[in-house]
Amino acid sequence: MSGDVIAEIMESSKGRMIGDGLQAADIDEILERCSGWGDWYEVVTDIGDRYEAMAEERLSGGFSMSAGEYLWRACMYYHYAQFYMFERPDLREAGQKKKVELYQRAAPLFFPPAERVDIPFEEFTIPGYLRLPPGVEKPPCAVLIGGLESTKEESLLFERMCHDRGLATFAFDGPGQGEMYFQTPIRPDFERFTSAVLDYLETRPEIDSSKFGVLGRSFGGHYAPKSAAHDDRISVCVCWGVLYELQTYWWDMHDITRNGFTYCAGETDPEKGKEVLKMIDLSSSSAKITCPLYLQHGVKDDLIPLHQATRLEKEAVNAREIVTQYEPEGNHCCHNLYHTTRLPMADYLAKHLNR
Amino acid sequence: MSGDVIAEIMESSKGRMIGDGLQAADIDEILERCSGWGDWYEVVTDIGDRYEAMAEERLSGGFSMSAGEYLWRACMYYHYAQFYMFERPDLREAGQKKKVELYQRAAPLFFPPAERVDIPFEEFTIPGYLRLPPGVEKPPCAVLIGGLESTKEESLLFERMCHDRGLATFAFDGPGQGEMYFQTPIRPDFERFTSAVLDYLETRPEIDSSKFGVLGRSFGGHYAPKSAAHDDRISVCVCWGVLYELQTYWWDMHDITRNGFTYCAGETDPEKGKEVLKMIDLSSSSAKITCPLYLQHGVKDDLIPLHQATRLEKEAVNAREIVTQYEPEGNHCCHNLYHTTRLPMADYLAKHLNR
Repeated sequence: MSGDVIAEIMESSKGRMIGDGLQAADIDEILERCSGWGDWYEVVTDIGDRYEAMAEERLSGGFSMSAGEYLWRACMYYHYAQFYMFERPDLREAGQKKKVELYQRAAPLFFPPAERVDIPFEEFTIPGYLRLPPGVEKPPCAVLIGGLESTKEESLLFERMCHDRGLATFAFDGPGQGEMYFQTPIRPDFERFTSAVLDYLETRPEIDSSKFGVLGRSFGGHYAPKSAAHDDRISVCVCWGVLYELQTYWWDMHDITRNGFTYCAGETDPEKGKEVLKMIDLSSSSAKITCPLYLQHGVKDDLIPLHQATRLEKEAVNAREIVTQYEPEGNHCCHNLYHTTRLPMADYLAKHLNR
Repeated sequence: MSGDVIAEIMESSKGRMIGDGLQAADIDEILERCSGWGDWYEVVTDIGDRYEAMAEERLSGGFSMSAGEYLWRACMYYHYAQFYMFERPDLREAGQKKKVELYQRAAPLFFPPAERVDIPFEEFTIPGYLRLPPGVEKPPCAVLIGGLESTKEESLLFERMCHDRGLATFAFDGPGQGEMYFQTPIRPDFERFTSAVLDYLETRPEIDSSKFGVLGRSFGGHYAPKSAAHDDRISVCVCWGVLYELQTYWWDMHDITRNGFTYCAGETDPEKGKEVLKMIDLSSSSAKITCPLYLQHGVKDDLIPLHQATRLEKEAVNAREIVTQYEPEGNHCCHNLYHTTRLPMADYLAKHLNR
């Protein structure tokens, strides 16, 4: 039976896990096997290892597409094993690296394949994956941004919704995220990294680079509008949860989340984390957004409060249009409503990118 | 809280439901709202109605692909509302008709679209849906056969696995199944209907009709090998659960299942049903199967016992090869292991249909 932390995690994140591709049967197994948070990493990675072994079996039979699916699942279990392990940097780092390695093996086996791209930018290298919808001539591209601990490896199912709608996808890690955390903690200029990604995508002849979409999830619901304010090549911006600033609710956050922000800011003391993260603020960006803006937020989000979304809505006075989807029963990023709140975001991207 | 029947249904069918596309969050809701089997139909169709309303909302915004997804989900809830309602033919019939209607509206909105086909055959009309994988020139086609109460509308997620692997799909209802039940109960010559389907598919220039695959699920694990024995255009046969005959375990079956067989045989008395269903027997077919044969069966299947599979395995002496996947922990059709037992069947079809 599960301990308290696990019950809390399931309450907040079960929908997220399923929406991102964990199998409901595996979640039942995790709950049965975990005796508490102390077991979490071991039990969840054990399921990941099982999928990796299944992938090897498929590969040996020549069934590369199923091998890709299983390697990706293995990756997702490593992701969720380490996602909240901020108090155990050793496990977090080990899980993160294994996750990245598994995805990298899986990527060329997907349908459509995901092409690994490493974009040099100043002293950094921005890692990302490009996927093209089969049979579409010069598709426009949706750029997908993760959050505090969500990364480019987690968006596979959302990417499928984009591909079905004729869009290419490019998911990347920026400062403080996933692979890039090992290059740099959170920085005040994430938007410059997004622009570097667009510079790169403009060099790809397979893509229609006359317009781009950007979608950011959770903390990415800060980076996406900031990027849209900064770069007018972005023709549509979707916030999958909105994060305007961190100061006003810093001490109201769950410990795990506050520790996570502190960790990704490169600090260990939450007081110091708060100070450093004053850089997270949309006040000088909001009015510069001119493209259509889609704001999704759960009214019952107890991680990032709704006022973060309504503030951006009020201040983005120059956006061509603002569509809000404030779900009365939605929790953080409406993950508990994963099954009905994700398709509309893909629809909105497609509406504005496919003319 | 749920009554006993519901607990039993969840034990046997939760994995099936999720594997077929019901949402885990919705299943939690069903369990919370159902006070017993008497409520089942009402609660489950209520969720279906909610998806239908969401589909209308998407349609009114011009988002047809999401509308198709929601109409299909509505269809699936109507399917599972009525699937075991053999003691309430009124509800079963109403649910069945609504399910068919919802799928028919959804079909052209899918990606790739599903084309409705009605094939005239003697005094009957065989209804089916053809789907072509995007961007594949002259794909071979996998013909998908349902079971006792599973029908052509339930295979959408499995079809996706086929399309990803370059195969077209054709799912149809035969005698006693889905829409065709209203034309004829179970008959001894299902294989002639499969051949009529192949005759039709040969007229479609988009398809490579030099070879066909056939996959049958549950009771379809009787019809598929029977069809393969009868028609040498079938180049590969997959049994998603094997049903050889019904006599030896007729009285050991769960009441619901026995009543279901009786109902679909056009009878009301299980004694009579047993008598009529003597026609269900592979003994004159097994040795006529010459194509590669894949037999999947759950060792813990308490609906159709494992000996049904091992008997076919033993008697199909002329099959070019036999691959068995007898899952030690698998229940009926390995539905409890939906997340790891479906991909290998798609792989096997693709291996033998894509040269």
